[in-house]
Amino acid sequence: MEKYAIGIDLGGTNVKGCLIDEKGGINHISRIPTEAFKGGEHVLEKVLHLIGMLLEQSGLAKHIIGVGIGTPGFVDTDGTVIGGAENLPGWQGIQIYRPIMEIFGFQAVAANDVTVMALAEAKFGAGRGIKNLVCYALGTGIGGGIVIDGKLYRGTHGMAGELGHVVVETNGIPCNCGQCGCVEQYASANGIVNCAQRVCHAKKGESDSPFVSFVISNPDKLTSKIIYEYVQKKDPVALEINEIVCEKLARAIGITLNTLSPDRVILGGGVMMAGQVIVDTVSKYIPDYCWKAIYDRCDITIADLGEDAGMLGAGAMAFEEYPLMRVL
Amino acid sequence: MEKYAIGIDLGGTNVKGCLIDEKGGINHISRIPTEAFKGGEHVLEKVLHLIGMLLEQSGLAKHIIGVGIGTPGFVDTDGTVIGGAENLPGWQGIQIYRPIMEIFGFQAVAANDVTVMALAEAKFGAGRGIKNLVCYALGTGIGGGIVIDGKLYRGTHGMAGELGHVVVETNGIPCNCGQCGCVEQYASANGIVNCAQRVCHAKKGESDSPFVSFVISNPDKLTSKIIYEYVQKKDPVALEINEIVCEKLARAIGITLNTLSPDRVILGGGVMMAGQVIVDTVSKYIPDYCWKAIYDRCDITIADLGEDAGMLGAGAMAFEEYPLMRVL
Repeated sequence: MEKYAIGIDLGGTNVKGCLIDEKGGINHISRIPTEAFKGGEHVLEKVLHLIGMLLEQSGLAKHIIGVGIGTPGFVDTDGTVIGGAENLPGWQGIQIYRPIMEIFGFQAVAANDVTVMALAEAKFGAGRGIKNLVCYALGTGIGGGIVIDGKLYRGTHGMAGELGHVVVETNGIPCNCGQCGCVEQYASANGIVNCAQRVCHAKKGESDSPFVSFVISNPDKLTSKIIYEYVQKKDPVALEINEIVCEKLARAIGITLNTLSPDRVILGGGVMMAGQVIVDTVSKYIPDYCWKAIYDRCDITIADLGEDAGMLGAGAMAFEEYPLMRVL
Repeated sequence: MEKYAIGIDLGGTNVKGCLIDEKGGINHISRIPTEAFKGGEHVLEKVLHLIGMLLEQSGLAKHIIGVGIGTPGFVDTDGTVIGGAENLPGWQGIQIYRPIMEIFGFQAVAANDVTVMALAEAKFGAGRGIKNLVCYALGTGIGGGIVIDGKLYRGTHGMAGELGHVVVETNGIPCNCGQCGCVEQYASANGIVNCAQRVCHAKKGESDSPFVSFVISNPDKLTSKIIYEYVQKKDPVALEINEIVCEKLARAIGITLNTLSPDRVILGGGVMMAGQVIVDTVSKYIPDYCWKAIYDRCDITIADLGEDAGMLGAGAMAFEEYPLMRVL
């Protein structure tokens, strides 16, 4: 009998879910609004509703081995949200596993959304066949995920991989986490935009770069996507910003390399729409920030899976945890 | 039939070895000078000689499952020393496993000396029963070791756990590794002595601390042991140095906590002869440098095993790799 996992990707805007098979095949994708502003209990109801929808649409309830969920924040081993999910107010303290078992009879496993993205890349994407790898998701913030010996490493309480909060500048930009100088403040989409604002305002009136003119004239429209369009056009100030951002990111990756000596670092998230220019620039700086012997045995690459990585990783995590069909 | 591993602890001064059983019992300890200045081939001969001695003394050749070696530097999966062993000139490039197999017929596995120390603590010391842990060895330099799911994590090429080279001060003190501001430059025995020299010379003539007088009058005699004797006596300047050192160490540990979220951090090495005062001071600062939820689920403690940790960990690693008796 074909086995499926339900993979759920819980975001601040939408809850996405699907059935995935052991090879990463996706079936019956559904998506409903999270309505995060209505609080944690409401978000849980949305997740439960989506699971119900997927079962009804697919008619495959008997084939389901379990439910995997990728969520912002941390989830403890018993399925309680510990915290760290700023875009889901009231989500902290919610118990996820019990209602899924009570209503549907499925075992469930949840983890940080970027952590499960790392597993998806390891199983089905840019990390296939790689033993030890690390993912950085460069989005609004920066998340991380660690795969060791081909298996997701979550730490005993599901909190490992907070790679966005590695300090890369002593007494640097204050971060929401309470520290100063976290890499998230420099190389996330928001961090890149803030960096561009600072640099362009400092150069105002002194530079004839079209990029500086754009930033000064459009203070609220700047995105990392626009910045990297100017990088592609080789605007000198945009290129300078790319160097600043990638040098800071390289410091964080260097620390991760010295710590874990992974075989591959995968860069994903919205910022990586910019593509190879970030990989090339960051690769130039990493050898300054770790042992050369470690860098020489690691490659840096772009994530493969895009938007489906969260659902795929969540499903793959369920297969890791519950490889056997449940006895009905 | 009782099984034993040969555990070898290769240092710059001595090569120590013993037979260990699966419970960490130590038998037939031997120790011979490394004579490191004679080069890498000579060091290899010393290791082989020690293995021969242990077999002869014990008469237990038939009970040996394999050889484990803890060595400064990095060892690749095939048993070639990749580098990083500054106190063993010519050791880089030496192939360790082949001659042990050819001469004695034993499989061998080697890893960084601090990495194996972490395994020893996990199996037989301060980390017994702990799933995920990290060790810092505060010695002449700082080494690290990572245990994940109760097993040693070495990385694919044996280079993981270089926790002494996590940067804790941007543009800080230059380090031998090529970076600036590595924690090794602040919280190793040498780093602590250098810090004390700097602080005491700055306070010369302005402070009536007995510690400042001692440091100024004995520029070449200062050790971390002496510094912590003055800390015990509550000398205000020595206490200040302890705060500086522990605050920097806390930054490194905070990064490791955000990365791996271990259940326990074990502090070992010669510096930790100073004892609980370091644990207490560092614990005060760590929450400033990682997520509180992660810190709250981790404890910080002192290594248990002292000087035998290297041999024990090397032997335990052999048991991990070669759990079965070889077929003769």
